[in-house]
Amino acid sequence: MKKITIVGAGLAGSLLSVYLAKKGFEVSVYERRPDMRKSGAAGGKSINLALSTRGIHALKEVGLYDEIRKIAIPMYGRMIHLVEGELSFQRYGKDDSEYINAVSRADLNKSLMDLAEKNPGVKILFNQRCSGIDFKNGEINFRNELTGETSLVKSDRIIATDGATSAVRLEMQKIPRFNFAQHYENYGYKELMIPSGKDGSFLMDKNALHIWPRGSFMLIALPNPDGSFTCTLFLAYDLSLGEENSFEYLSTEERADAFFKKQFPDTYEMIPDFKKDFFHNPTGSLMTVKCYPWIIEDRVALLGDACHAIVPFFGQGMNAAFEDCTCLNECIEKYGTDWKKIFSEYQELRKINSDAIADLAQENFIEMRDLVSDRDFLLRKKIETELYKKYPDTFVPKYSMVTFSRIPYSVALKRGRIQEEILKELSKGAESGESFDKDKADKLIKEKLGKIF
Amino acid sequence: MKKITIVGAGLAGSLLSVYLAKKGFEVSVYERRPDMRKSGAAGGKSINLALSTRGIHALKEVGLYDEIRKIAIPMYGRMIHLVEGELSFQRYGKDDSEYINAVSRADLNKSLMDLAEKNPGVKILFNQRCSGIDFKNGEINFRNELTGETSLVKSDRIIATDGATSAVRLEMQKIPRFNFAQHYENYGYKELMIPSGKDGSFLMDKNALHIWPRGSFMLIALPNPDGSFTCTLFLAYDLSLGEENSFEYLSTEERADAFFKKQFPDTYEMIPDFKKDFFHNPTGSLMTVKCYPWIIEDRVALLGDACHAIVPFFGQGMNAAFEDCTCLNECIEKYGTDWKKIFSEYQELRKINSDAIADLAQENFIEMRDLVSDRDFLLRKKIETELYKKYPDTFVPKYSMVTFSRIPYSVALKRGRIQEEILKELSKGAESGESFDKDKADKLIKEKLGKIF
Repeated sequence: MKKITIVGAGLAGSLLSVYLAKKGFEVSVYERRPDMRKSGAAGGKSINLALSTRGIHALKEVGLYDEIRKIAIPMYGRMIHLVEGELSFQRYGKDDSEYINAVSRADLNKSLMDLAEKNPGVKILFNQRCSGIDFKNGEINFRNELTGETSLVKSDRIIATDGATSAVRLEMQKIPRFNFAQHYENYGYKELMIPSGKDGSFLMDKNALHIWPRGSFMLIALPNPDGSFTCTLFLAYDLSLGEENSFEYLSTEERADAFFKKQFPDTYEMIPDFKKDFFHNPTGSLMTVKCYPWIIEDRVALLGDACHAIVPFFGQGMNAAFEDCTCLNECIEKYGTDWKKIFSEYQELRKINSDAIADLAQENFIEMRDLVSDRDFLLRKKIETELYKKYPDTFVPKYSMVTFSRIPYSVALKRGRIQEEILKELSKGAESGESFDKDKADKLIKEKLGKIF
Repeated sequence: MKKITIVGAGLAGSLLSVYLAKKGFEVSVYERRPDMRKSGAAGGKSINLALSTRGIHALKEVGLYDEIRKIAIPMYGRMIHLVEGELSFQRYGKDDSEYINAVSRADLNKSLMDLAEKNPGVKILFNQRCSGIDFKNGEINFRNELTGETSLVKSDRIIATDGATSAVRLEMQKIPRFNFAQHYENYGYKELMIPSGKDGSFLMDKNALHIWPRGSFMLIALPNPDGSFTCTLFLAYDLSLGEENSFEYLSTEERADAFFKKQFPDTYEMIPDFKKDFFHNPTGSLMTVKCYPWIIEDRVALLGDACHAIVPFFGQGMNAAFEDCTCLNECIEKYGTDWKKIFSEYQELRKINSDAIADLAQENFIEMRDLVSDRDFLLRKKIETELYKKYPDTFVPKYSMVTFSRIPYSVALKRGRIQEEILKELSKGAESGESFDKDKADKLIKEKLGKIF
């Protein structure tokens, strides 16, 4: 049978439907929300994302990259804003050929849906809420959110791409021996908007991801094509981390205003609607989801956030989900119609790497909010850059492995830790990024790392 | 308002209803299953439990201990069965005054229900499945499993004691910032029965918990009042731990029979229905549940397995749930009708200790299946006994703290780890339990442990 049901037409589900249509499958995608191309509703998630190598690879495979590239804004590095207003730029890659791309979640999703529907084998049905599943018989109940009509959909293959709060996964959780964990950070986030200047000009450097690292909290900003920036404030929910630095404490306009003025003086003037944004926009939560198994024999598979939602601090959530699609596609190429093997190899290849990017993303929060303005950290970064130049196929910075390569996340995590130890060792006696002990570096790298490229 | 709804009339729910009735509350207990006192259905769980100090304390408080004591069988220690048939006895406590009690889950539950219904303020409603909850309005939908009738129950206070697969918790999981993890061991269990001998005599020592430790798996047996023993085989599900030692491999009568004969030769003859038991009884799974928060303001609380299901290897699942009831009762005594404070202190006091007993129970599996026949472990045990004699209020064995005291589990875990380090240190130079370095012991204990009693 060539019929596949996908639950969820978000980024992962839409992309996957294209991959599968290209292989000749008949794909029905059931989406709970209305068609965002008509309603203008972008969903509750953050507005822009950082598209990088893994995601780009998938978009190239389905032939969409040239289109997306036109609406993406390259970000070549971090622009660090200190409290005093001082700026410093930390390049992400080795030169201008390596960058991440700010792209609108809604625009990307709409493009993927358009592309999907160009395939006669794909249909997307909207306003369809999954209200029950019979895994044994491959039957899903959907309820039309507009009409209240219910329908029973039977298919041989169900792939759930219904996100971090997946309804399909919630049903799987009732099956014995299904391991599951959802963990919330004690941090929430709030979106704020820096509008464009006159004539749609950008009020800050357009080609950077802006960070205001403040130790226990941080503000970031990504550019939008219209000249505006979408800012996100990551802040503890409650008072446990320090009196003023929490949503709980900032409960009055006066307190919020004073906090912002003090902590982000260079930005305060640029957000005219600060109080409105702060008190009217919802406070988002940050969840990590891990589960196992992801599959039920040859009949059901979870993909993307549905099985491995992560915190956003490495900009890899979407990229990881797209890489799931690439991997599943390769397994289909390898095993044809043997779905037991397809699903089982997909699970084996992706589970270990999803666990790794979950850990990497959590680590990167500490780096972003705290370390990027730390003297020792900056010294290690400088030594890292030197070593990368000297050993471009061996000592590849963790950030580069994750962002600018398709090296498995689990390998990036492991090598990243070894490299971090080497850097700590070398930075002990060093006063600058050039003055570290080169012979010791050669020895350590030879001992502990093999070539990766 | 004095009305409280309890979901689940298992051991914890039934006991809690008595505690609450004694405080003057009007309690309705909704139970999904039929009344086990009429139907004879004991539920899917293991048949006998090990009642110890924490559980006994609760039963004493509600006035049920004298009755239960009559149907309980004291177990004074572990009886280790080696493959060669050799037996060795390892005492649990310091003397015959310290023992754990084999008691039938069904009998205990029935007694608790009878006791509950003696209170005019308690009613238990059976065959009532929780089919939906509105936490905001304190409304629960129940569906009568016999008649199909549905009812809407509104109350100010909901306490969920509906076990490891709690329906109430599943609803709470959808609330933002609810942390949750369910973890299954790669081990399953199978119940087997050793019938009584002639005239209801016991075929093995009645007053012991029998263990056949075999490294990666084990068999245990607890006595029943009718002279039989309920055995439980704990075995890996799949082949990963060694070819023959898994349910997956033992898929034919021939293989299962050969395995049992080889591994448990002294027991093989005593289980006449081995093949029937092995292939007809269901394979149970072993789950650990952790979650947080346990409460919603002053309206909802989880209790017992519903918020902290653990593996059975320390015999503390029921004891921990009963201790939850004792704690909640104390919080009511302390705060009267301020349920916000009652629930919040209950959660604070119990969460940390539930996490601790979950870890202790997992550690004890390794001890039971592997270490109890290990030479170094036995040496450490002997030194432990000596030190306990010398420092009865300071060096209390971990097993005793957990089983024969009401020391918080978290304290038992912490002190247990310190003591284990001391024992490892002392056993290095020792050849027997008497020959260890006494001065060093004095020094280490003085340095690392304060008095506990």
